[in-house]
Amino acid sequence: MLGKIEHIGIAVKDLTASNELYKKLLGTAAYKQEEVTSENVITSFFKAGENKIELLAATDPDSSIAKFIDKRGEGIHHIAFAVEDIKIELARLEKEGFTILNKEPKRGADNKWIAFLHPKGTNGVLVELCQEIKE
Amino acid sequence: MLGKIEHIGIAVKDLTASNELYKKLLGTAAYKQEEVTSENVITSFFKAGENKIELLAATDPDSSIAKFIDKRGEGIHHIAFAVEDIKIELARLEKEGFTILNKEPKRGADNKWIAFLHPKGTNGVLVELCQEIKE
Repeated sequence: MLGKIEHIGIAVKDLTASNELYKKLLGTAAYKQEEVTSENVITSFFKAGENKIELLAATDPDSSIAKFIDKRGEGIHHIAFAVEDIKIELARLEKEGFTILNKEPKRGADNKWIAFLHPKGTNGVLVELCQEIKE
Repeated sequence: MLGKIEHIGIAVKDLTASNELYKKLLGTAAYKQEEVTSENVITSFFKAGENKIELLAATDPDSSIAKFIDKRGEGIHHIAFAVEDIKIELARLEKEGFTILNKEPKRGADNKWIAFLHPKGTNGVLVELCQEIKE
C-alpha cells in the first residue's frame, strides 16, 4: 500500500523566479537545491507540513521536463508516494495491471530510489513511488 | 504559511471506474463519497498516509471539472494545502501579489472552508487553501 504524499513535482521554466514565487506562496524558502544530471533537471525542495514541493527545471532541451512544458505548459508534473519497500510495491502494482516505467528503481533526487507508473493507467496522473535510501 | 498537503484533487470521467483503479493503486478503498451540488461534482476520498486523494467527477457538463477534462484530459486538477486560518492566509497571499479567486471562502467537500488562487500566478498550478470547519 502506498504511504503519504512524499512530494508533488512541479515543472517550471525558470527555477530562480519560481523559488521566489514558491517562497512567497508557501511562506518558507527552499531548503535544498539539487541537480540530477542523469535526468537533465535541476530541482529545489520546499517543506509544506510533513510533505514537500519539488520544483523541476530542465537543464537541457531534451529533458523530459522541457518536453512536458512544451506540450502542456508549466504545472504539476507528478505525485510521489512514499513506500516502505519499492520492489514489493512495484510487484504488487504490476500484478494489478499498472504499467511500470522503471522495473528497476533508479536513483532520484533527495536520496531516494524511485520508479514511475505510466499515466495512461492512472487517469492521466504521473505517479512516482519513492523509498528513502538507507546506507 | 501553508501547512501540509491536505489533498490532491484528480479530475476523472467515470467515478466508479476510477474508485476501483485508485483502490488498486493506493491499496485502500475510498472511505467517503460526497456530492457538492453547488459545484456540480461528485467526489470520493482516499487516504495516503496522512494525506488524501480526492477524485472529482462532473455531474453536469457545465461543471468546471467537465470543462477541465474537455480541455486537458483527466489528471491532477489541484493541490490543497491545509491552513490554520484561511482568512489570514488569503490576506497574506493577496499582499504578496497572488490572485485570489474566492476572497470569501466557500464551503467545500469534507467539511472545509476553501478558496482557490489563480493558476496564472503559481506556475500553472491550481492551489486550494482549506481550513477544517469547527462547529
